[in-house]
Amino acid sequence: MLGAAEDPASRRFPPDITGNSLMRIVNVAAAQMGPIQKADSREAVVKRMIALMDEAKSKGADLIVYPELALTTFFPRWYVEDRAEFDIWFEREMPNAATRPLFERAAQHGMAMNFGYAELTPDGHHFNTAILTDKTGRIVGKYRKVHLPGHVEYDSKRSHQHLEKRYFEPGDLGFKVWRELGGIIGMAICNDRRWPETYRVMGLQGVEMVLIGYNTPSVNAEKSEEGVEKRLFHNRLSVQAGAYQNATWVVAVAKAGVEDGHPLFGGSLIVDPNGEIVAEAKTDDDEVLVHACDLDATTFGKTTIFDFARHRRIEHYSLITSQTGAVPPPEK
Amino acid sequence: MLGAAEDPASRRFPPDITGNSLMRIVNVAAAQMGPIQKADSREAVVKRMIALMDEAKSKGADLIVYPELALTTFFPRWYVEDRAEFDIWFEREMPNAATRPLFERAAQHGMAMNFGYAELTPDGHHFNTAILTDKTGRIVGKYRKVHLPGHVEYDSKRSHQHLEKRYFEPGDLGFKVWRELGGIIGMAICNDRRWPETYRVMGLQGVEMVLIGYNTPSVNAEKSEEGVEKRLFHNRLSVQAGAYQNATWVVAVAKAGVEDGHPLFGGSLIVDPNGEIVAEAKTDDDEVLVHACDLDATTFGKTTIFDFARHRRIEHYSLITSQTGAVPPPEK
Repeated sequence: MLGAAEDPASRRFPPDITGNSLMRIVNVAAAQMGPIQKADSREAVVKRMIALMDEAKSKGADLIVYPELALTTFFPRWYVEDRAEFDIWFEREMPNAATRPLFERAAQHGMAMNFGYAELTPDGHHFNTAILTDKTGRIVGKYRKVHLPGHVEYDSKRSHQHLEKRYFEPGDLGFKVWRELGGIIGMAICNDRRWPETYRVMGLQGVEMVLIGYNTPSVNAEKSEEGVEKRLFHNRLSVQAGAYQNATWVVAVAKAGVEDGHPLFGGSLIVDPNGEIVAEAKTDDDEVLVHACDLDATTFGKTTIFDFARHRRIEHYSLITSQTGAVPPPEK
Repeated sequence: MLGAAEDPASRRFPPDITGNSLMRIVNVAAAQMGPIQKADSREAVVKRMIALMDEAKSKGADLIVYPELALTTFFPRWYVEDRAEFDIWFEREMPNAATRPLFERAAQHGMAMNFGYAELTPDGHHFNTAILTDKTGRIVGKYRKVHLPGHVEYDSKRSHQHLEKRYFEPGDLGFKVWRELGGIIGMAICNDRRWPETYRVMGLQGVEMVLIGYNTPSVNAEKSEEGVEKRLFHNRLSVQAGAYQNATWVVAVAKAGVEDGHPLFGGSLIVDPNGEIVAEAKTDDDEVLVHACDLDATTFGKTTIFDFARHRRIEHYSLITSQTGAVPPPEK
């Protein structure tokens, strides 16, 4: 869409980075973002995203990953009776006037990208969406958040509202993967990362790198004594387990800091296919982590302990797809 | 089977421990075992198990959890051409002459128990099995290991053999749960703990405590540079994620130490429904950890972030049960 198509061979085996045409390295930038306030325009946010992209480029990145709902504040914290009032937070096309400079800069840099935004479709559907572009700035993949947390109606028992189930419909595209950057790339969003099904469905398609943006309140709205340290622990635990159990890289990127008085935790992570953290954000602000991810590091796990074809026993998994909620056995 | 049936009400609400008849506390003992050598008789092993049980009783336990293949050495490390030679490692009935004293002591103590053994059925099937007894020593549940690691034939490329797929058939009972001790209890064995499907199938039945015995070599037979610290990390990661993502207690119990020159790691764990480790073994030998597990601590997770009925989207999980191995998308 923007810029000339690049030679796919150079994309697959970047000789400039590794000096070894047989290696499959993706230099990924986790571009954590600090808070976005209600009054901040899309244009101002895109300017920040471009600054992060320039920094990522200077560090050799060929893929940049931004948070969920990267263009706006995390608006599901507010209740409005008429949901249509909140269409101001949604994008009707992508790219659009506000985001075009970001796509153009990505094409200039020859950098693939992933970011999240609120999507309003031409036929009136609302999704919490993420896209993947190739190195020419062309959108090659779209994901719509499947696991929406929170609730639909105002809940006075919570310390703050989390109305994702009010403003979004559950994603209708499933968990796909795309061949990009010489590897197999998948996407998920925020709460999806706590669900092992997310990673497994992509793992069953051979995923080598999962990109996940998130906005996660530092306070549990229903358990105020759960401190931010425990919430960061759950973040790491979910991402590390998903990486290890599917032998895939996972890049999890936060929007962090205090938005309109509501703190979001940071802790953006890059996790290797052994489940080890190789990079972790230290601030709650705009911050770039870059790591050279060897996609072939996924091979060992995928061909030994997690060789699904040899070891999985789907005849015993049927409840996972036949039953949504938990059904305890009858009382004795 | 052994001893008089106990009043179920006292089982459900042990007033002697909590002083509060409304609490559901299970005092669980993780009974890690040190190595069992080839020459050690079943009788000698049972004597050790009874000593661990007595110690657990003195610490107030009402459930004791022993490792996988608790009665013998980990024989799948040896190759024999004629598998029938290895029937010596299998039990044809349970209890049997060697294990009866263990069942009797459990009934005396009023202690439920879980342990693993190699099972040879009357019709000639071989399973890696675990049982659950109630506080009277009666077997109330049986589980047969579903996820068998390793291989069938001698593999000269490995630093040591791991022939579980040679000596056992995959379990045919699925992942059931049982109402015991006032709660909902499930079982799994060793390598099962690395598979999120294991916990999820039980989670979908409302499981509140999962009992897992294991024997895990300290060395990766196909990756000698993977040190024991990384292997302990994977053990913790898998168990903690399974606990958190299903809001359940998990008790994971090792056979540890050097058997016939082959080291097994210890690191037995009790993990709470938030995924936090509440007790961890410090030795590679016989060692008892006891923890008072409040089964109602599972309620918060099960009714909020992991309220499956509200949040799971089974329409996007179909690959998990329709496809065993990974199938990458076509090359571009």
